[in-house]
Amino acid sequence: MNHSHTPTLPHRRTNLNYALELDQQDELAHFRDEFVVEDPDLIYLDGNSLGRLPKRTALRMRQVIEKEWGERLIRGWGEGWFTAPQRIGAKIAQLVGARADEVIVADSTSVNLFKLYLAALQARPGRRKVVTDDLNFPSDVYLLQGAIKLAGPNYQLQITPSPDGLTVPPEALREAIDENTALVTLTHTAFKSGYVYDMGVVTETAHRAGALMLWDLCHSVGAMPLDLNAANVDMAVGCTYKYLNGGPGAPAFLYVRRDLQAEGLLSPIWGWFGQKGQFEMKLDYEPGPGLKRFLAGTPTMLSLAAVEPAVDLLLEAGVERLRAKSVRQTEYLIALWAELLAPLGVTLNSPRDPNMRGAHVSLGHPEGLRIDLALIHDMRVIPDFRYPDNIRLGLAPLYTSFAEIHEGIMRLRRVIVERLYEKYPTERPEVT
Amino acid sequence: MNHSHTPTLPHRRTNLNYALELDQQDELAHFRDEFVVEDPDLIYLDGNSLGRLPKRTALRMRQVIEKEWGERLIRGWGEGWFTAPQRIGAKIAQLVGARADEVIVADSTSVNLFKLYLAALQARPGRRKVVTDDLNFPSDVYLLQGAIKLAGPNYQLQITPSPDGLTVPPEALREAIDENTALVTLTHTAFKSGYVYDMGVVTETAHRAGALMLWDLCHSVGAMPLDLNAANVDMAVGCTYKYLNGGPGAPAFLYVRRDLQAEGLLSPIWGWFGQKGQFEMKLDYEPGPGLKRFLAGTPTMLSLAAVEPAVDLLLEAGVERLRAKSVRQTEYLIALWAELLAPLGVTLNSPRDPNMRGAHVSLGHPEGLRIDLALIHDMRVIPDFRYPDNIRLGLAPLYTSFAEIHEGIMRLRRVIVERLYEKYPTERPEVT
Repeated sequence: MNHSHTPTLPHRRTNLNYALELDQQDELAHFRDEFVVEDPDLIYLDGNSLGRLPKRTALRMRQVIEKEWGERLIRGWGEGWFTAPQRIGAKIAQLVGARADEVIVADSTSVNLFKLYLAALQARPGRRKVVTDDLNFPSDVYLLQGAIKLAGPNYQLQITPSPDGLTVPPEALREAIDENTALVTLTHTAFKSGYVYDMGVVTETAHRAGALMLWDLCHSVGAMPLDLNAANVDMAVGCTYKYLNGGPGAPAFLYVRRDLQAEGLLSPIWGWFGQKGQFEMKLDYEPGPGLKRFLAGTPTMLSLAAVEPAVDLLLEAGVERLRAKSVRQTEYLIALWAELLAPLGVTLNSPRDPNMRGAHVSLGHPEGLRIDLALIHDMRVIPDFRYPDNIRLGLAPLYTSFAEIHEGIMRLRRVIVERLYEKYPTERPEVT
Repeated sequence: MNHSHTPTLPHRRTNLNYALELDQQDELAHFRDEFVVEDPDLIYLDGNSLGRLPKRTALRMRQVIEKEWGERLIRGWGEGWFTAPQRIGAKIAQLVGARADEVIVADSTSVNLFKLYLAALQARPGRRKVVTDDLNFPSDVYLLQGAIKLAGPNYQLQITPSPDGLTVPPEALREAIDENTALVTLTHTAFKSGYVYDMGVVTETAHRAGALMLWDLCHSVGAMPLDLNAANVDMAVGCTYKYLNGGPGAPAFLYVRRDLQAEGLLSPIWGWFGQKGQFEMKLDYEPGPGLKRFLAGTPTMLSLAAVEPAVDLLLEAGVERLRAKSVRQTEYLIALWAELLAPLGVTLNSPRDPNMRGAHVSLGHPEGLRIDLALIHDMRVIPDFRYPDNIRLGLAPLYTSFAEIHEGIMRLRRVIVERLYEKYPTERPEVT
């Protein structure tokens, strides 16, 4: 990468006092108090893998478990549980620029992708190609490989390569998308580099070729404004356990544009929660109205309930304000990197232009894995790691402070300068 | 039905004192104290729709939410979350007569059925028929209809009718299963009548024809001993929110016989939790070892965590003892029905023979729906209802007392005798 335009900081900007000033000026700073922060000395830079616990969620879950399940028992279904997928979906719709009836919470991101892939292929019969790229999250690609196998013979998946591992230019996608393309599917903010696609441009490219467009919003939702309706997006999925702070493995959401729903799009998984007149217990499947048909089994109610207060908190903060802070934070981190880490051989593995970057920043170092282990085990810093050498730092604008970013970078610098990583193995034991 | 052999009770057996005596003799009675019972006057006969909250689960969930998520954050995955699907699966295996590596907890029953249906059809290529019957749970049948549509042309589903709506004789299934049959799939304890199939006999019939056998254990597991290995069952699914008391919509489990796993059975949903070397982030799907490949997305950890203490409780009580109590309870309920309800025109919609009956008992009355509403809203009794006229009473041997059964039947009798149901509508508003 060309780092010649990286801004350098006046010396005092690398001082903690400057970070504290930024925190003082931050109109969202008080939202940190909404979260459980048990150990203020722990630098948590992995909110894009698992968001922190909102205090109100802890209270709400006591209510759901001890009162609603414990005391109301089966009646809980009639007292707010049954409608939770739609109700929480409508709230998430406000975060992604969709209408209330265009989003529903269900299953996992993986299962929702599977449903929508097959629904899309069915909705574009005769077309045999799906286009994605190699910045897409691996699970999305595996699911595509499986869906294509199921869809029938002659289907093919085209994985457009990223020229630099960080970005994919729109022209490369434009070349891949043709009149045989049924579906284009990408992760809006790339899980590794943090590259953000131009949603409107790519969606329009897909539509011009007659293909459907599906965006994976996992690393975008809650960290930046999204406008699915304005971009005329056909389908989307997203995760609620990253910037939405819904809890470990919280159920995911899916979006289908209203007029595409009206075309009769079908889920391949015909469970009873998708059935019209579900409790009539007829033996012939008849898909329910709207997005209900994309539900399958009984929702995992405890995990689902945890999503709602967390989404409420996001709505209170507002995604426009969160994005403005997020850009300030990633810019600040990159300025610290330029001053303090680049001279040590650490590369920036994320786009330099904030308009092309999400809320996480990836740094590269040949000893990335061992540095990551030293940060976690010796330095009370929690980053994430992505093979082969990528230290991923997630800045969640709802609760990450500038002081935390400063301290995280200082500790990272110390691990490299003092070679504290050397006691760790070069290979992580395989997790099967 | 012919009720001529229904035993009648000496008059005193219809008295509460007799129920209290039965409770005093019950060696499992103290397990009721393990559960939250907020209102002892509420007669809860719907534990087969949603099991009660174990007190230890309430405590455990505070730990999981407030400590593991709130304080350990992403580290929770390495500290017990990641292995929970296998660990809890191994515990459930003890309840169903399977080996530890033959059961895994994942997704919903519906999604697991979908995976196994397609895996089974793929494992028996050339065979085009699936056999089930009309006592199967509707969701299972919908999912089959969808799976068959996906599997390709010329597949057919044969739904064997029950001659009386209560049972399906083995001979009727034997006639339906032939050399074109890929899969036989039934619900082991029928959701409405409570009829229990002879697992060994039906499985052997399927195997003799070269078909695979899949049992839905939702209404069996936790209420009776099961021995999947002894019956040489190929595949099974089950729910954890009924007799397992795992919480509303708790994730389900699936079982695949070890040697069938070795044949390379594949899930159609290729998510990253099913990938070999999941964190290497390669772009080609390679199925993980054993049942790991039947995982899809990130497990809904809060809902999943609630399953474990509940299963531990079941293991402490022991399914053999639970079944013995369960038979005593359904026999007692049926004796009360014969004495107190049959004369009022209430029919028994469950098998009379306890060997052919699970832990719930269905009663029929032309005003069944309105009686159900009166019980819930005026009488503090919670039964379940199944169209068109079926009052379903679930007796969970882990916490239902004989006194509770007695009181429930007395209140039901009062609703009918005093016609307390007459103020309720004859049609339930449609839930879409």
